[in-house]
Amino acid sequence: MLTKKGAATRQRIVEAAVAEIRERGIGAVTLDDVGRRSGTGKSQLFHYFPGGREQLLLAVAQWEADRVLRDQQPHLGQLTSWAAWRQWRDAVVERYREQGGHCPLGVLITEAGRHTPAAQAVTRQLLGQWQHHVRVGIEQMQGSGDISRDVDPDAVAGALIAAIQGGVVILLSTGSPAHLESVLDLCLDYLRTYR
Amino acid sequence: MLTKKGAATRQRIVEAAVAEIRERGIGAVTLDDVGRRSGTGKSQLFHYFPGGREQLLLAVAQWEADRVLRDQQPHLGQLTSWAAWRQWRDAVVERYREQGGHCPLGVLITEAGRHTPAAQAVTRQLLGQWQHHVRVGIEQMQGSGDISRDVDPDAVAGALIAAIQGGVVILLSTGSPAHLESVLDLCLDYLRTYR
Repeated sequence: MLTKKGAATRQRIVEAAVAEIRERGIGAVTLDDVGRRSGTGKSQLFHYFPGGREQLLLAVAQWEADRVLRDQQPHLGQLTSWAAWRQWRDAVVERYREQGGHCPLGVLITEAGRHTPAAQAVTRQLLGQWQHHVRVGIEQMQGSGDISRDVDPDAVAGALIAAIQGGVVILLSTGSPAHLESVLDLCLDYLRTYR
Repeated sequence: MLTKKGAATRQRIVEAAVAEIRERGIGAVTLDDVGRRSGTGKSQLFHYFPGGREQLLLAVAQWEADRVLRDQQPHLGQLTSWAAWRQWRDAVVERYREQGGHCPLGVLITEAGRHTPAAQAVTRQLLGQWQHHVRVGIEQMQGSGDISRDVDPDAVAGALIAAIQGGVVILLSTGSPAHLESVLDLCLDYLRTYR
């Protein structure tokens, strides 16, 4: 457990690493660069990240994963009307359209070793939280009678998260958000037919 | 344009590379290994693949991409009844469940340089052909009155392809086909509501 000051220093290091990686690419960034930018000495860096570069990269991946959800707020946290769902849908499409062919989180997860337990934990936690938010939205719409109770909130929330991942994967390969838009629209149409 | 004999030799080289890569991993396989397994000399290898290892890897990626579609046949080519759609859905889930956490095509595309034009061409062609087959299926169901003409066949086919990619991406990270099944079921439910 870090003190408030310790947590702030750790956070400053992570954000310096985020900025360095975004500006110069993950391959070019060393711990020295991150130390210089954050005004942190080597011993302090290893105090917060005893595992060195690898552990710092995972912290950066976690930061980028949190940002995926932050970028969808406030919409993702208040899916209580069809207008809100529409705004959320537009925010998701816009976020990934802006990001274009480069996925910072994907690069970090690949670099951290896609199949290592630590990298998989970051991915799973992100997907889990994302699905949770959407599930809560569906349940709220069921509470207000806008979505039928025949819909399984968790299964449909999982389907929606998968749909977004697929649209984004195709966007990364083609540069076009068309598939992302189609599959999100299909899912929202589906929910609306179960009013 | 290759002669029949030339095409057969090229094919033998590609299939030897496929087998070597599957058995020993892409990093461990050299052109010498592929030559030995296919009974092909170095000069013959470079006759068919003047670009060397990189060009051979792309040909293997193309072979794996073709296999993605082959594995869905005959269902994918005859989506003319709801029973056929169901069989196709099950075949897709089964294929990726068996494949599990390892995606040979994904590994090849990464190795060939995900963002190079040649690798992207393989990906795009696969997605395009896949979407075409599904679109033809939707159009056939519209022809027989099983799906409403209000459905845009190309947009919904694109959504379905994106849905599958997303389910597979999550399967690769979690090991579970649950998301793939949920999102495919949602898409098929959606189509059935537009009878």
